[in-house]
Amino acid sequence: MGWESYVVVHNIAKRHNVGTLARSATAFGVSELILIGRRDFNCFGSHGSSSHLRFRHFHSLQDARSFLKDKDCDICGVEITHHALPVNHHPFKKTTAFLLGNEGTGLSPKECEICDFFVYIPQYGGGTASLNVTVAASIVLHHFAVWAGFTERSRDGNKYVVAERPVKQNRRNYCPETEESIIEERKARRENVGNGFFDEIEGGSSSSNLLDALFVDG
Amino acid sequence: MGWESYVVVHNIAKRHNVGTLARSATAFGVSELILIGRRDFNCFGSHGSSSHLRFRHFHSLQDARSFLKDKDCDICGVEITHHALPVNHHPFKKTTAFLLGNEGTGLSPKECEICDFFVYIPQYGGGTASLNVTVAASIVLHHFAVWAGFTERSRDGNKYVVAERPVKQNRRNYCPETEESIIEERKARRENVGNGFFDEIEGGSSSSNLLDALFVDG
Repeated sequence: MGWESYVVVHNIAKRHNVGTLARSATAFGVSELILIGRRDFNCFGSHGSSSHLRFRHFHSLQDARSFLKDKDCDICGVEITHHALPVNHHPFKKTTAFLLGNEGTGLSPKECEICDFFVYIPQYGGGTASLNVTVAASIVLHHFAVWAGFTERSRDGNKYVVAERPVKQNRRNYCPETEESIIEERKARRENVGNGFFDEIEGGSSSSNLLDALFVDG
Repeated sequence: MGWESYVVVHNIAKRHNVGTLARSATAFGVSELILIGRRDFNCFGSHGSSSHLRFRHFHSLQDARSFLKDKDCDICGVEITHHALPVNHHPFKKTTAFLLGNEGTGLSPKECEICDFFVYIPQYGGGTASLNVTVAASIVLHHFAVWAGFTERSRDGNKYVVAERPVKQNRRNYCPETEESIIEERKARRENVGNGFFDEIEGGSSSSNLLDALFVDG
């Protein structure tokens, strides 16, 4: 059976660098990186990997959960909760999406609600309360790939062979959506205009410029 | 039997950030982080972990090897060589020091020479030739800790308990040496003065200032 893995990040902080995460995700055969909420991110450190990874966006945790459940996918929170299972025991059953917490605060109660189970990475020394989020994600994705029996990539000397870059490049550092959802978002934006709601979501960027750029690119 | 792990980095690039590496090293119960060659580094991202980790410095690969062999320690290169073993098979026998390559170039022939064996992390996707060096090190240290059966750290809610900071703080972002080796280095510096040798090793820092600071601190 061909199991798949997904990575899910909710309201990624602008400072949060998805570059190294994207690099690990493609190394470990992740099918898609799913962003919920914010869509703009910083790709420094991806070494070009981000162009090999499919990105998908949802507005809410529930929308993402529905999409993943339609694929008969387990949602696994990466968090040290009371009932979390050690990742090295490979507590996987099928295709799994891994929901990552934000650095520092971990997964919120709302984020935990959409999870079917949790894994954690055992720690042994007294120097840190938690791991860097990309390091934690990489360890989890590595274990899932081993469990799922993904086919190892061929090598050329001491390096793995990098595939040709996909021809169609999306706008850099931005996760595009379908035209339908852009129209919907424009409508919502008009309704919310003046209350600062979109300013909060889009941070320093002009949301209309981003949307226009998408229409041009798409 | 109480096995131990060590991390060894040779001629760390100044831009190379050991902060996240130090954080992972302390999480996975590493005994010491050993620097060969350069002694100054950047600790951004350690979240205070670097003050919980013991640093040790050697001038040459051979000096480091002698120290580790006196401890009956295997030296394991983290590199995708032809004979490298997959790390998830836990090909460990005893206390092990993990020698990390530099980002991009990997381990040099001289670095490979001091290694007893090599491990690699299998990759599955076509988006990257290799992993970030700290991510790779973290995965290897995690597997070693599981294999060695280190005692898991106690937790407080969703976080591991951080130990009290050691009272004696070394000078930040610098790996000190014994007084004897500092005197030796001063002598060597006088002999090399004017030929740019120390400028190359010490980068932008003034080596005499660094050494004077050590005498004051030590």
